Amino acid sequence: VKVGSRTATVMRVAAVEKPTNWTEKYIKEVPVSLLRPGVDTEDTIRAKFEKVIRDAQDSICAAISEIDGKPFHQDAWTREDGGGGITRVLADGNVWEKAGVNVSVVYGSMPPEAYRAATGTAPADLEKAKAAGGRVPFFAAGISSVMHPRNPHCPTMHFNYRFFQTEDWNGIPGQWWFGGGTDITPCYVVEEDLKHFHGTYKAVCDRHDPAYFPKFKKWCDEYFLIGHRKETRGLGGIFFDDLNDRPAEEILAFSKDAVNHVVEAYCPIVKKHMNDSFTEEQKQWQQIRRGRYVEFNLVYDRGTTFGLKTGGRIESILMSMPLTSRWEYCHEPAAGTPEAEFMDAARHPRNWV
Amino acid sequence: VKVGSRTATVMRVAAVEKPTNWTEKYIKEVPVSLLRPGVDTEDTIRAKFEKVIRDAQDSICAAISEIDGKPFHQDAWTREDGGGGITRVLADGNVWEKAGVNVSVVYGSMPPEAYRAATGTAPADLEKAKAAGGRVPFFAAGISSVMHPRNPHCPTMHFNYRFFQTEDWNGIPGQWWFGGGTDITPCYVVEEDLKHFHGTYKAVCDRHDPAYFPKFKKWCDEYFLIGHRKETRGLGGIFFDDLNDRPAEEILAFSKDAVNHVVEAYCPIVKKHMNDSFTEEQKQWQQIRRGRYVEFNLVYDRGTTFGLKTGGRIESILMSMPLTSRWEYCHEPAAGTPEAEFMDAARHPRNWV
Repeated sequence: VKVGSRTATVMRVAAVEKPTNWTEKYIKEVPVSLLRPGVDTEDTIRAKFEKVIRDAQDSICAAISEIDGKPFHQDAWTREDGGGGITRVLADGNVWEKAGVNVSVVYGSMPPEAYRAATGTAPADLEKAKAAGGRVPFFAAGISSVMHPRNPHCPTMHFNYRFFQTEDWNGIPGQWWFGGGTDITPCYVVEEDLKHFHGTYKAVCDRHDPAYFPKFKKWCDEYFLIGHRKETRGLGGIFFDDLNDRPAEEILAFSKDAVNHVVEAYCPIVKKHMNDSFTEEQKQWQQIRRGRYVEFNLVYDRGTTFGLKTGGRIESILMSMPLTSRWEYCHEPAAGTPEAEFMDAARHPRNWV
Repeated sequence: VKVGSRTATVMRVAAVEKPTNWTEKYIKEVPVSLLRPGVDTEDTIRAKFEKVIRDAQDSICAAISEIDGKPFHQDAWTREDGGGGITRVLADGNVWEKAGVNVSVVYGSMPPEAYRAATGTAPADLEKAKAAGGRVPFFAAGISSVMHPRNPHCPTMHFNYRFFQTEDWNGIPGQWWFGGGTDITPCYVVEEDLKHFHGTYKAVCDRHDPAYFPKFKKWCDEYFLIGHRKETRGLGGIFFDDLNDRPAEEILAFSKDAVNHVVEAYCPIVKKHMNDSFTEEQKQWQQIRRGRYVEFNLVYDRGTTFGLKTGGRIESILMSMPLTSRWEYCHEPAAGTPEAEFMDAARHPRNWV
């Protein structure tokens, strides 16, 4: 199956020359599966999760592209150590300045320092396993996306869903966990929009566990805190990590439901505001908020900071950067303005539903 | 002595209301000295270094302001735990989009984790001292500056000179060291300009120790490496840290000489290019390089990352951010262009003199 046939929104499959500092190999055709042939059979969670995220990449890109009127560009690559990825970027669009949706499926072995004993391995056992040496066999698959619209009345949106698994290693049984979330970063507080976005995810969560939404909404506010400014990056959504407290099939079903509601949660808000008029001041405010987005991603975001320091594919990792951003010395909106209202919501996270 | 009388380039002394997340107190008048009354007498290195950096702040701001035609704005603050600072910013100037020069003189006690045994305390002794508990009494003074011009043919310039001292602590004798440097970040390679900049600092270094320049030039190239891109932030200069291998008076004299040659090294290059015509493409290339500047500062720069995580004054720390910046997916200049020539110099640091 050629990539081009998976979705009509793909403009071309790049055959970019490999720069000296990347270890990935570009490929012209994306295989039906990036999984390990013969190992990750169709009945595995790995295979099912790959299908979820690749289908989601197709359907989300198609929906965004239809609104924007411009196709995504695609780079597909394989990794020497195992696995590969599909990076799709819509740059300089009509509605979005920059929108990217990445899928990656990688496996191999990692240094023990990277091991997260999510299922509760006793620290002593972990130390013993580390002392025995060697590397931890792992499998990781995920979809991640950031979309930055042009219009300051249209919010930026981010989502990420991932599955991680380790194999038995030095006496520690194999572990697995899911993580992810969808969150929204507007420049202005539009209560109706926030009710729609948060309400969509509350409904998704409630279908799987009524305890999910309050827990994951709070986690989102805490995770996306720009620590040095004591303000959140955006206005929330859901976020979860290390989730493995019930059968994997159930969390897979929840993750699938969540990623499949990105379009419903986000696109109506964009459609509503994409033709709103705006002033130069509003555009500059958006640019300042984009600067905050950069600060969060480069200083705090685990995926970004880990990726940059461990030699991930830089252009895929930094696809989350806005096209443009701005830093003004001591910028603080005047009291009573819509910008000050946003700051209040960023400094004191609210419940929108 | 009122601040206004120290330099004609100061526009006003701010009396900004203290935001909730800052612990500094704004002051309307900067004292003649930010040192500890009665402790840091005129004959101490501390007092001499404060004079060096405050005089440099005045003279450099005056020189920049004269070229730009616009004054610096000043915020002066004191720190509850001891000391204070003077932040000067020229925003939205005629020649510079954003230029800042900070001076700070702080003292108090720091957690042992922050201790850097620069003079070579044996690790065992350091561990013993840590185990004995308590905090390390310290004194730190420094000047730091970043200047981002509008014209893509005018380079960004950064400098920083600092003096650090600890007192006797849990059996470890008091330590002191100097650090600093001046470096230049153009968007294009203009060999004549780079010869002038590096030549100025070679002459400064050679007056104090012929071994300095080759050592500090190399250190600069290594320090300002954007690790994840395998390219340098700019095109070098000098950088040194933990310097204490000769009498403090000698290193003070070298630091003074270095900070007092910032104007001579940098300003002629700006004057030469500030009225150069440029294309929209050249402006965008500048914006992409500014994005790289942001990446280095938020991901690698020790002062920035340490400051953000330990509650420094955010607006002073992030004064180094460019006014605007840009990230394009997979941007790589075409071979043979002036932009590709820059990339070559950033990937393979050269000796300009």
